[in-house]
Amino acid sequence: MTFITILDYIGTFAFAISGIRLASAKHFDWFGAYVIGLVTAVGGGTLRDLLLGCTPFWMTQPSYLIVTGFALIAVLILGDKVIHMHNTIFIFDAIGLALFTVVGIEKSNAAGFPMFVGIIMGTLTGAAGGVFRDTLINEEPLIFRKDIYAIACILGGFVYYLCDFIGLHTALTGTATAVTVILIRIIAVKYHISLPTLKGEESKNTDK
Amino acid sequence: MTFITILDYIGTFAFAISGIRLASAKHFDWFGAYVIGLVTAVGGGTLRDLLLGCTPFWMTQPSYLIVTGFALIAVLILGDKVIHMHNTIFIFDAIGLALFTVVGIEKSNAAGFPMFVGIIMGTLTGAAGGVFRDTLINEEPLIFRKDIYAIACILGGFVYYLCDFIGLHTALTGTATAVTVILIRIIAVKYHISLPTLKGEESKNTDK
Amino acid sequence: MTFITILDYIGTFAFAISGIRLASAKHFDWFGAYVIGLVTAVGGGTLRDLLLGCTPFWMTQPSYLIVTGFALIAVLILGDKVIHMHNTIFIFDAIGLALFTVVGIEKSNAAGFPMFVGIIMGTLTGAAGGVFRDTLINEEPLIFRKDIYAIACILGGFVYYLCDFIGLHTALTGTATAVTVILIRIIAVKYHISLPTLKGEESKNTDK
Repeated sequence: MTFITILDYIGTFAFAISGIRLASAKHFDWFGAYVIGLVTAVGGGTLRDLLLGCTPFWMTQPSYLIVTGFALIAVLILGDKVIHMHNTIFIFDAIGLALFTVVGIEKSNAAGFPMFVGIIMGTLTGAAGGVFRDTLINEEPLIFRKDIYAIACILGGFVYYLCDFIGLHTALTGTATAVTVILIRIIAVKYHISLPTLKGEESKNTDK
Repeated sequence: MTFITILDYIGTFAFAISGIRLASAKHFDWFGAYVIGLVTAVGGGTLRDLLLGCTPFWMTQPSYLIVTGFALIAVLILGDKVIHMHNTIFIFDAIGLALFTVVGIEKSNAAGFPMFVGIIMGTLTGAAGGVFRDTLINEEPLIFRKDIYAIACILGGFVYYLCDFIGLHTALTGTATAVTVILIRIIAVKYHISLPTLKGEESKNTDK
Repeated sequence: MTFITILDYIGTFAFAISGIRLASAKHFDWFGAYVIGLVTAVGGGTLRDLLLGCTPFWMTQPSYLIVTGFALIAVLILGDKVIHMHNTIFIFDAIGLALFTVVGIEKSNAAGFPMFVGIIMGTLTGAAGGVFRDTLINEEPLIFRKDIYAIACILGGFVYYLCDFIGLHTALTGTATAVTVILIRIIAVKYHISLPTLKGEESKNTDK
């Protein structure tokens, strides 16, 4: 098992935990919690693969389903203790976000798409699973209102293509991208940095 | 018209009815009700076909659109009487769930995917349409909180591969799978069997 | 830049504005508003391309991302003034709906699908982006309850295949279709024409 594979499992585990915790707050059953965990972990990569015209990555090996199973077991055994492991989960989540961004960009490049598609695919791989999670549990997507999250993937994407442009080795390019994503996440959360919000009047078109 | 085709139409009709009823409770217009009915009936199989890389099944013949039209007409004519036909609709729905599970597994096998993908595709074909339905009408998906529903597809999937492993004829394997799904649904509803739910504290991350 | 391209950008701009306005009413941040605008503008065509088995159209040229960026800037600079430009936005939106319908039908025909698929693809291209928008901002889809909107695409689709059947030139067929969609939209809004709604009793199945 390579170092990248270990990081991949850590990220999958952290993403699944975030889905299972929110499903738990909604009192979903075990099956529902598992599905929400799985969608959070593999949803972004699945959308990426459908857009790129590839077979979804989790359909060729079951490890993502198994890691999500371990995440469910962890929440069942540890219960609310998991919620209090804030910092560990935050770092795991940042590692996942960083790695998924790099994987998304590289898969887009391998399929022959230009830079702007690569940055979108990196961002979707990292951030779209959380949007599916929030849609399924019937909440407004968190990343559209809070923190710098998807923006970390986008900035990481620019770092990727910059390193690539100046001719850095692939491994170095990937590492620089991942470190960028993780650092931006740490700085954004530590200093409560958010994007400005739009403050429109209530639209008259809404039907409530 | 073969026996399987008749079962397929019965299942499609029952799934469409479930969508149209819920759209009706939300006071959607006829078009909205039709779309919700159609998404409930063909949404799961469409997701399956996109994941497997096939052309969605309803794009090669219009019968699913027509059956959904009949379901809308039935609700328009019979109105609340349809709601009181509980048992008939329940059995039709269970037949649909069972047949869709078998179809999903067989399509996955035909595309060359392993057992764990087949069980997921069977479950998606049976249960994902209802999740799309609930998301579109802005409710939490029912199957994540109530009853044994998707679990019936999963257990049916294990029965399928068990029968396949011991060398049963395809028709027998399919029948055993379908009977398993229907029986589990009947037992689960009759004896109010549900999965345990997760009881997490309210997550502090939610933004309300 | 051809006349069609200009219409395409006008439609994209209007669709993006509608998404950004609703995101603004929900106090999303700039990134969230941009994503909602983009999904509204390109979501329908993306679903169409996935169903048809093509590469999503925006992945081969970045202009749709750029037009959406201009829409965000317009809302940021003009603020609530945009909301009061009702009539201009309405006409732009109708132009987008009309053009997207024609594009969807032609792409379906080019992929070799029959008439009923073409009408669905035209309707999805025009109307599905708004459904994704409403799902992401956690509202019931507007087009399932209000106005004649998707129905304009469907009727436009029938006009398309009628013109095609009597042997009209492609450009004339497209124009007749687009004019039909725009006229139906204007008439529906001017005379407050809606489809009848379904008035079911509250379903006992819902879990609230």
